[in-house]
Amino acid sequence: MTPRRQSGRAPVTSPASATVFTTVLTQGPVSRVEVARRTGLSSAAVTKAARPLIEAGYLTELDSEQTGIGRPVSPLEVRADREFFLGIKITDSELIGVVTDLRAQILVTRFHRLPSRKPDAVVSGVAEMAAELLALSPKYTKRTNSLGVTVAGDVDREAGHVRYSPFLHWQDVQLAEPIGEATGLETTVDNDVKAITVAERWFGDGIGAPSFALVTLGTGIGCGLVVNGAVVTGSHGVAGEIGHIPVAGDGPLCHCGATGCVEAIASTDAIVAQARTATGERGLTMAEIVTRARTGDQALQRVFARAGVAIGRGLAAMANLVGPERIIVSGEGLDAYDLFADELRETFATHAFGAAAQCELILRPLPFEEWARGAAAVAVQTLFIS
Amino acid sequence: MTPRRQSGRAPVTSPASATVFTTVLTQGPVSRVEVARRTGLSSAAVTKAARPLIEAGYLTELDSEQTGIGRPVSPLEVRADREFFLGIKITDSELIGVVTDLRAQILVTRFHRLPSRKPDAVVSGVAEMAAELLALSPKYTKRTNSLGVTVAGDVDREAGHVRYSPFLHWQDVQLAEPIGEATGLETTVDNDVKAITVAERWFGDGIGAPSFALVTLGTGIGCGLVVNGAVVTGSHGVAGEIGHIPVAGDGPLCHCGATGCVEAIASTDAIVAQARTATGERGLTMAEIVTRARTGDQALQRVFARAGVAIGRGLAAMANLVGPERIIVSGEGLDAYDLFADELRETFATHAFGAAAQCELILRPLPFEEWARGAAAVAVQTLFIS
Repeated sequence: MTPRRQSGRAPVTSPASATVFTTVLTQGPVSRVEVARRTGLSSAAVTKAARPLIEAGYLTELDSEQTGIGRPVSPLEVRADREFFLGIKITDSELIGVVTDLRAQILVTRFHRLPSRKPDAVVSGVAEMAAELLALSPKYTKRTNSLGVTVAGDVDREAGHVRYSPFLHWQDVQLAEPIGEATGLETTVDNDVKAITVAERWFGDGIGAPSFALVTLGTGIGCGLVVNGAVVTGSHGVAGEIGHIPVAGDGPLCHCGATGCVEAIASTDAIVAQARTATGERGLTMAEIVTRARTGDQALQRVFARAGVAIGRGLAAMANLVGPERIIVSGEGLDAYDLFADELRETFATHAFGAAAQCELILRPLPFEEWARGAAAVAVQTLFIS
Repeated sequence: MTPRRQSGRAPVTSPASATVFTTVLTQGPVSRVEVARRTGLSSAAVTKAARPLIEAGYLTELDSEQTGIGRPVSPLEVRADREFFLGIKITDSELIGVVTDLRAQILVTRFHRLPSRKPDAVVSGVAEMAAELLALSPKYTKRTNSLGVTVAGDVDREAGHVRYSPFLHWQDVQLAEPIGEATGLETTVDNDVKAITVAERWFGDGIGAPSFALVTLGTGIGCGLVVNGAVVTGSHGVAGEIGHIPVAGDGPLCHCGATGCVEAIASTDAIVAQARTATGERGLTMAEIVTRARTGDQALQRVFARAGVAIGRGLAAMANLVGPERIIVSGEGLDAYDLFADELRETFATHAFGAAAQCELILRPLPFEEWARGAAAVAVQTLFIS
């Protein structure tokens, strides 16, 4: 992470302070007494931690309301427009950028084509997009300190370093530092799926769920995982790589070098490759494959069925290992869900061990700008995680 | 869990109190200031929480020591013999029982044969063993309130209920209530591997590790998992079932009903079955199989090699999903480790995605009484988790 701009940032100076701020941010409006109850801090500690946050304009007291008993309480609430955040997701062909408020609510969205996948060109593209987003409003220019950038693959967030990103063909690319220099913003780089999981956990369906998983299907197959109330980041920076669970014995070779990975059977590329082999038509596109499978081509239907089995096994492996309350399946791969949903659910039910089968499987599309929102949520985290 | 005996138990009355107690228990001796620093509580809150615990004799102040600067500090320490705990592990053929102190240090160990696997007989056997252990010392009789009982399989700890235990041939057996009635002790039932993980986390190699996994090989293949600083219990009560990760496509049928599970290839039973098939000798024992494999029988060596591959895939799946800092592999299956270690490590290295390959694999035997110690650690938890 690039050095933090100190001026005017939220005065989060202790673990208690971070706990109070995140509690109000994700669960507010909420009274000091209730913050104390939920966090285990004393009321005095909550009051002490809240004071500088109120003075700096990050928290505000709502009008006192008389509760049934006792003295009146003034719930604490976040001032969402106290600071703004940029989030930019790098895909293999474009940049998706947003400005959000403190609660990671999207205020504007922009899409730019990516002229090249070369790291230098991507850094320039990100800097241009950041400048354009900030220029949209004087308050964005004045009150934005942080930029979150996300990318598919193996990312070392601490070092701001992309170790491996298959779709960008990157190996060991330092990203946070050059982007931080080019934009003047505190820049955090993270894995795209982990970032969306942060957004879900703090500001979405994951609020209050002690554990859940968000699985994305598409060019890659990834997964963000919340366990014991926090996003799983992996001791060595790798976690949620459900696409690389070996579920097919000596099955097809994966781009990662191993065999039988979920991704080698069920990613968009893998489905297209298998469909071309099955039909002998080397020019087939995903759109054509989906249409022909839907209109009765049994060879192509079998390709999707195999993908459903592979994904179902991967989901069962996750349910058996960490037992999330629910699994949200999403991503552009969902467009063809009707072609593999039955196999996915049946396989999951077969391999989920005992009560793990009670894990709820939710299917939910994910609009493109949500990816950039995830990047902004990572930027919001810079307030608390230094 | 059966109702708590209130008289004379540790006065853990708030989240802050539980935090202070567990911090001193697992990391003591430690000063109040240091407890405050590590937990994010204020010094005042630590002092307030510690007072009743000192008065009840659970915590004690060590002699003041003059640190280099500032006023003298009196580190807090647990009085380990303030309360004793029973732990009993039920295997398919015996009961292993221990008395431990507050720090789950084993004071005595007993082994009883299990006359029958019928739930009633097991309850009687556990009650007899508990009575025998308590009778060993008047202080055990007086200062023991809690019994932890562990068993392999799918256990609903909250309900004190064993949903499924393959080796006991149990389905839906209520265990905590009848044992609580028979012994008069507050009884907690949990999965055996999860319980050992609690002991490792609080009192063993897991202290301070934000994430680790303990995998046991043997009649079953199980795994305890610590992620984000706490044992993963699974939202539906199932977690760590690494034995039921599907790693072999349409591979061998497992007792759980699915195909290709790690356990269907690498458990002791599975190895024996495959060895008998490979040789045509239906009476072969595990000991004979190991000896003959070690002395050059290639068909039997291949059986172990396949087991190593299956386990390696399961470990890689776990590393890719949750990224533990280290994985401890243990259990009686380790006796034949030399016959599959190479395949296990090679397969892990192949399937671990990117930096997940940095996860440390540790091989460590696990004496039988450690299983009962895990059960006692679960009993210690009843002080904090009601």
